[in-house]
Amino acid sequence: MAKRRKYVFSFTEGDGKNKMLLGGKGANLCEMTQIGINVPPGFVISTEACLDYLTGGALPQGLRGEVRSHIRNVEDSAGRQFGSPENPLLVSVRSGSAMSMPGMMDTILNLGLNGRTVPGLAGQTGNERFAYDAYRRFLQLFGKISLGAPDELFDEKMNEIRKRSGTGQDPDLSPEHLKELCGEFLEIIRAHTGKPFPQDPWEQLEIAIQAVFRSWNGRRAVDYRRQFRITPEMANGTAVNIQAMVFGNMGPDSATGVAFTRNPATGENGIFGEYLTNAQGEDVVAGIRTPKPVADMEMEMPGIYRQLVSLRDRLESHYREVQDFEFTIERGVLYCLQTRNAKMNAQALVRTSAEMFEENILSRDQALLRIDPMALEQLLAPRLAPSQKDEPLARGLPASPGAASGAIVFDADAAKERGEAKEKVILVREETKPEDIHGFFAAAGILTSRGGKTSHAAVVARSMGKPCVSGCEQLEINLRAHTARIGSRTLAAGDVITIDGSTGNVYAGEVPVIEAGFGDDLAKILQWSDEAAELKVMANADTPEAAEKARQFGAAGVGLCRTERMFNEPDRLPVVQKLILAETDDARREAIDALLPVQREDFKSIFRIMEGLPVTVRLLDPPLHEFLPSAGALENEILNLRHMMHRNLAGNLEDLAEALRLVDPSLHRKFREDLKRLHGSLSGIDSARTIEALLRSRESLLKKVNNLREVNPMLGHRGVRLGMSFPEIYIMQIRAILEAVAECSREGVDVRAEIMVPQVVTWEELKRVHEYVEKVRAYVEQRYSLKLSFRFGSMIETVRACMRAERLTQVADFFSFGTNDLTQAAFSFSREDAESKFLPLYTESGILQSNPFEALDVKGVGRLMEMTVMLGRQMKPDLKVGICGEHGGHPESIRFCHSIKLNYVSCSPPRVPIARLAAAHAKLKEKEYAAADRSEAFIGKLLKIQPKKIKRLKLANV
Amino acid sequence: MAKRRKYVFSFTEGDGKNKMLLGGKGANLCEMTQIGINVPPGFVISTEACLDYLTGGALPQGLRGEVRSHIRNVEDSAGRQFGSPENPLLVSVRSGSAMSMPGMMDTILNLGLNGRTVPGLAGQTGNERFAYDAYRRFLQLFGKISLGAPDELFDEKMNEIRKRSGTGQDPDLSPEHLKELCGEFLEIIRAHTGKPFPQDPWEQLEIAIQAVFRSWNGRRAVDYRRQFRITPEMANGTAVNIQAMVFGNMGPDSATGVAFTRNPATGENGIFGEYLTNAQGEDVVAGIRTPKPVADMEMEMPGIYRQLVSLRDRLESHYREVQDFEFTIERGVLYCLQTRNAKMNAQALVRTSAEMFEENILSRDQALLRIDPMALEQLLAPRLAPSQKDEPLARGLPASPGAASGAIVFDADAAKERGEAKEKVILVREETKPEDIHGFFAAAGILTSRGGKTSHAAVVARSMGKPCVSGCEQLEINLRAHTARIGSRTLAAGDVITIDGSTGNVYAGEVPVIEAGFGDDLAKILQWSDEAAELKVMANADTPEAAEKARQFGAAGVGLCRTERMFNEPDRLPVVQKLILAETDDARREAIDALLPVQREDFKSIFRIMEGLPVTVRLLDPPLHEFLPSAGALENEILNLRHMMHRNLAGNLEDLAEALRLVDPSLHRKFREDLKRLHGSLSGIDSARTIEALLRSRESLLKKVNNLREVNPMLGHRGVRLGMSFPEIYIMQIRAILEAVAECSREGVDVRAEIMVPQVVTWEELKRVHEYVEKVRAYVEQRYSLKLSFRFGSMIETVRACMRAERLTQVADFFSFGTNDLTQAAFSFSREDAESKFLPLYTESGILQSNPFEALDVKGVGRLMEMTVMLGRQMKPDLKVGICGEHGGHPESIRFCHSIKLNYVSCSPPRVPIARLAAAHAKLKEKEYAAADRSEAFIGKLLKIQPKKIKRLKLANV
Repeated sequence: MAKRRKYVFSFTEGDGKNKMLLGGKGANLCEMTQIGINVPPGFVISTEACLDYLTGGALPQGLRGEVRSHIRNVEDSAGRQFGSPENPLLVSVRSGSAMSMPGMMDTILNLGLNGRTVPGLAGQTGNERFAYDAYRRFLQLFGKISLGAPDELFDEKMNEIRKRSGTGQDPDLSPEHLKELCGEFLEIIRAHTGKPFPQDPWEQLEIAIQAVFRSWNGRRAVDYRRQFRITPEMANGTAVNIQAMVFGNMGPDSATGVAFTRNPATGENGIFGEYLTNAQGEDVVAGIRTPKPVADMEMEMPGIYRQLVSLRDRLESHYREVQDFEFTIERGVLYCLQTRNAKMNAQALVRTSAEMFEENILSRDQALLRIDPMALEQLLAPRLAPSQKDEPLARGLPASPGAASGAIVFDADAAKERGEAKEKVILVREETKPEDIHGFFAAAGILTSRGGKTSHAAVVARSMGKPCVSGCEQLEINLRAHTARIGSRTLAAGDVITIDGSTGNVYAGEVPVIEAGFGDDLAKILQWSDEAAELKVMANADTPEAAEKARQFGAAGVGLCRTERMFNEPDRLPVVQKLILAETDDARREAIDALLPVQREDFKSIFRIMEGLPVTVRLLDPPLHEFLPSAGALENEILNLRHMMHRNLAGNLEDLAEALRLVDPSLHRKFREDLKRLHGSLSGIDSARTIEALLRSRESLLKKVNNLREVNPMLGHRGVRLGMSFPEIYIMQIRAILEAVAECSREGVDVRAEIMVPQVVTWEELKRVHEYVEKVRAYVEQRYSLKLSFRFGSMIETVRACMRAERLTQVADFFSFGTNDLTQAAFSFSREDAESKFLPLYTESGILQSNPFEALDVKGVGRLMEMTVMLGRQMKPDLKVGICGEHGGHPESIRFCHSIKLNYVSCSPPRVPIARLAAAHAKLKEKEYAAADRSEAFIGKLLKIQPKKIKRLKLANV
Repeated sequence: MAKRRKYVFSFTEGDGKNKMLLGGKGANLCEMTQIGINVPPGFVISTEACLDYLTGGALPQGLRGEVRSHIRNVEDSAGRQFGSPENPLLVSVRSGSAMSMPGMMDTILNLGLNGRTVPGLAGQTGNERFAYDAYRRFLQLFGKISLGAPDELFDEKMNEIRKRSGTGQDPDLSPEHLKELCGEFLEIIRAHTGKPFPQDPWEQLEIAIQAVFRSWNGRRAVDYRRQFRITPEMANGTAVNIQAMVFGNMGPDSATGVAFTRNPATGENGIFGEYLTNAQGEDVVAGIRTPKPVADMEMEMPGIYRQLVSLRDRLESHYREVQDFEFTIERGVLYCLQTRNAKMNAQALVRTSAEMFEENILSRDQALLRIDPMALEQLLAPRLAPSQKDEPLARGLPASPGAASGAIVFDADAAKERGEAKEKVILVREETKPEDIHGFFAAAGILTSRGGKTSHAAVVARSMGKPCVSGCEQLEINLRAHTARIGSRTLAAGDVITIDGSTGNVYAGEVPVIEAGFGDDLAKILQWSDEAAELKVMANADTPEAAEKARQFGAAGVGLCRTERMFNEPDRLPVVQKLILAETDDARREAIDALLPVQREDFKSIFRIMEGLPVTVRLLDPPLHEFLPSAGALENEILNLRHMMHRNLAGNLEDLAEALRLVDPSLHRKFREDLKRLHGSLSGIDSARTIEALLRSRESLLKKVNNLREVNPMLGHRGVRLGMSFPEIYIMQIRAILEAVAECSREGVDVRAEIMVPQVVTWEELKRVHEYVEKVRAYVEQRYSLKLSFRFGSMIETVRACMRAERLTQVADFFSFGTNDLTQAAFSFSREDAESKFLPLYTESGILQSNPFEALDVKGVGRLMEMTVMLGRQMKPDLKVGICGEHGGHPESIRFCHSIKLNYVSCSPPRVPIARLAAAHAKLKEKEYAAADRSEAFIGKLLKIQPKKIKRLKLANV
């Protein structure tokens, strides 16, 4: 016969690391006991006992004996006796599995009370009321939890007594009332179970243990495990913790409290907490007395305070983490009842990491790993003061973090105008378009009623680090009236609102905001991150302002500089439109000549700012029609003009304009502007001829717009396809870049330019652009008499480019994944449409585990990327590969990028600090994740390429 | 010292298979000579001699001697002497490399003529004029080709003589004129070379041989080889063929002619050709005499005719292919000068294949392989009579093969109306939309001014087998005037035109059309194809009519039945719109209930027609807004209504309608219809209230349309995404399918239904639809008291589905690649936009080798597909995999599908015969292609899966 299994472990012998056997709470109590912390004595019944009980349907053989013998030991340690009427030992009985499952089961306190031990307790505490109060609580909890008596029955009796006593508050009940209540409770239990309440503490204990065991398969627990996907490998069965009760209300030398080893709000190094003298934990909860700061204890009970500080030191040096602990002082003796890792805000996390490393409590890697990279978002954007309690007016999507207050404006021009007058404004739109870009610069924040977290508004706001709430569907905008409605409330232009882009909340009026800080502690943490990481973090930056921000946030370069953002600036857009509408070569050449110096200056500014670091410039990407007015707007104008012609109201154009205003105010404004443009002033003009001229010019513009119109612009005439159709645009851009390189080099600036081609599907496209580059290079080198040095590479954002990776390496020095487009192509989802249509359903109902435009879809898109890297590096082992989509700032996606050995990620400047820390995490946790990855691994199963061939290259400057 | 290389091969000794050494022409002359055909004697100088000459810069050692000795042999065979003034041997000198390179070099005839041999030739032929004409031609050719004298000098002299003689035609020149010309030509040569013309025939021969050698590196030849990508492995150097001249003009027992071993226009088995008695080949070209049919020769020269028939038999039994040969009869002796495989039309190809197999001339495989599958297109669609010579009015894209004449109609309603009156009409539109579908059924053909070969019009026309010309950009349609303009010509509704969808031509008036035939010979060929092929050929068929056609063309089932085509029929569209616009569950349920029986009957008809064969039904795919009017049209209507309200013309609605007509006639018509619908009649109504009611209803419809509007509909809320958002639609369709299966089974019909889910990106979608299916199955089985049998599968048309193939096999019984969508996703090209914007530039300038929507992009999309098949079959070895895109009917794409071991292709019914033959070719040529494929192979390089694991399964009914 096998040796009988040991079920019960004293706190002095249980293995503090074995949570599967002892549960989290039990293991922790054992650990504290064994490192010499004063924990009330007790023992743990293992999860194995639970499982054997559930299998066998009865307490397993020998368990009863083990429990008895351990209770004897507790009696010895506590100096009290279980069931003794004079000096009764009371115990708490708590469940505890390997995984925390809050709410699965309540705690039973004061077990061991009965008709005979209650007076003993009254004597011990000198407080009869307390003893009966404890008894009635025990009876109700035990009755409910262990015996299954309905809670309502107890509550009814309680209410009766309350009414009868004329008191509203429990604490006002007298000992007599409580005694009476205990009698009623005993009766409830008798009636419910058909048996008297078990007065025998041993019987009580046995019943309580079985109830805890059964609770493992109770409905609440089963549901909880299903919901949080807790498998038997993670937690199997519950342990039972039985521990002597201690009391903080045994006189002026007793107390109870909660403390943190460091300040969880600021990170300040020192004990921080609250306590109550001569009180039990429940008194704190009931709120009858105001607790005192722990610092007061130094005066009040200096000896105990010294013990408490020493406890704090012991906890922190043992756990090497800020602790949140509970303590009770019973007649001058300090007991620690519980400890756990403290929850802290971002500021505290960063400060404690920096200091605990410097105090040698944490290693560098530990200091980094304890900070969730996403927590830094709080630090890097302004946020609402935690004190604010206003109810939000409406809720939208948290599209770009940060908070801002300002006056409502409904169009970008107004935003610019008022913004330039230093007024704080919030740009409120149904949705935004590239032509609104000047409004973004001027606004403190953006609020849209349509669009998802990757809508134009969201993407641009994030790239600028401005707060944005998108898709706020309760908001109904009436552009004609210049008002917006939320439910019954109407907001007018100029009304002040506050948006919180971290939560998606919108508030009326101004709500106080705390500005962001980038302190020394954070700088330290990020520098250590860079040392730990293999992946470099670059920034997406289209303007000198963004480049400044990128440097400030510690980017290793600019991984994506979108030239079209430059095209959209108000002073350039007309030239770009001229270029698009040019009917002759001369007109086209003229527009190109006007753009060249402008772009060259843009690049020079950015190159100077990013001196010594790479700047990757992407050639023009979006379809040309994005730079023109929409066909719908033009059609409306034309129809209006036709109506006017038909009505033949030739007399007075002012009348006409006025009539038009009634039909559509926005058209009316535009009409008047056009009239002015045509004639200088509104007076003395031939209205019929003017209208006709206007009509013709609108019709011809519409024709061009219609020619450029596309059914699916995302898949349209854009990227390198433009470079093939209109080589002059690409050649102008290449010339602007290379001349900027030449001029900066002359100034002595260390320029590291990279030219990147978007939307490539075939080698031939890349080769032809490369031919343009070589021609321009020869021209520029000759003109400036110097040798240019730069790199040439390809965006990888079409699936075909992935499939042809080997071939592309024949011209490309580097690859940069455009994971937004690649995700769209892999899923055949249009980002703009999906997020406002079916994607919320998909993620909420679990068809997809997350929005693939936020978290990189590792199983699908990731597999494509991994394959591409393999294919590319097989041909060109030193191929530099990075990613420059929104995913570049997402920690989980960064982890994946690290795992497939990319050289860098590029993200919006405000995300750079997050990404730097995440890149360090990716490296430090790579072993931990390797096993999980393997089950999904593509390589192992599919690729014949020898792993040794593939390595990430340590490039001096990726 | 190595043995001296042999350079010269007599026709009796050269290896007829060694084209690399002897060139194509030389090898052929050797082969004919050696199988006993009477070929004028001669010899070949090898390509090695050419290369040695070009390397060494001089005729290689020993060549001169070899040539002399072979000329001696020719003299002996011919009974004439080279350079003899009495009985001169004349020879032809021709180049000839391993690859045919037409136009690279001309032929020199009559070499050996000089001042002394010309009279000899005159004596031999009895024709002095002929002799001097031959001499001046020889002098010009030799002067130009061998000596480099400019052609113009000769032509100038010729023109002078012509003028002087007062004749316009060369044949009118007298022998004296020709003699004079020869004198002038000799002088030109002397002046150009600084030496007299080489009178010595040996010198002539040596100069001619060197000139031919040099021509290999001449500019024309080098350009030709570059353009047609002829590499040195394919042809290296030119051979020189030297052959005795024979003359068909030596009297009434001489003749010359051209013949086919079978009729190349009909395939009829028997000699077919033309000849001229007492004439040379040039006389035929000059056109002075009309040739006689070869059949006449049986009467005119019966002995020779028997020889000719025997020659025909010998050629065909040797070459095992219909031959196109040239012959000359010199004084009763028949010579064969050349033979080559005949070019035939499709009908002849099919008939000769069928008959030559039955005559044991060809094996079955040879009979199949000699027919280009695409040639069958001619046979399967009506075509213009070959006799027609009209100039086309305009040219568009050949979007769907076949020819049709009919009266122009400009909208689908008119097409239906007039089509139902049995009138033949051509639907002429800028572009077509799903709501035009009823017009397609009624029209004989479709002509559009916009859109590519995969536009809506083209795709639908092809699927119906109707001719279509798309993207005819010269056509300007004026919908208001109901006219169309092509250049200066205006066509009105009702005018008759003819379109040729095989060429893209559009003709005025009716052009005679030859109807298509599906004869016994074709049936035999296709049956043999099915026996030879491994790949099955299914058809895409959405309607019972299309299913009938599919069966008729021998499809192995329906591989794609698109249910949305059924939704668009005019009697159903309103119900579908009701479903989409339903605001309450009841309204939705009502629409669903109306659609269910309609769909069930559709499926029953198709199942009955396809009895015993699989029918794959695809659940709803297109986005819902495709079933609603466009936002633009609604916006225009609303703007017009607003103008009316503003003008407050409350008096007379008729006036209003009239006013509207001036603004936009099409809106006017619609407006009147709507008014009637609202009020029954136009008289006695409250106009202001009516307009307001109309405005509100339009605004509410516009709101819905805007809600459904998508920026990129191709990537939008469609396919299974609809099935997730609106389960009731999918469940209704599944129920209709399964009830149809049940009812047909009850009737005793052998139904093999397959349910296919479109646009899948994740296993979870497929699983959920599968759950719908299982629920409906249980309901139907219970209701009909029977067990249902069917398959469930997934379209593979998103890239993510490819990446997740293993996972999808956990629910899918089969995969069907949607290569249209997959191509769009892989390239990030929108088919509709790309073909009208940049794709023509891409294919014309060689950025892409072909339009990937026509020919499957093997390197990119193909690689994805191959990987998907591997992944899928690794998990489920018996996974059935097919393709149901347009590529399914494209022979090159079919070959690829075979190579990656698909089970079937599915294409439009008219393409089925082409695909069946192409599938046979794919199997029969697989070894030939294997080597070419390997260089691009994905598997060998990338996949670790053992090839033995992957096999195509011979399913009884794929």
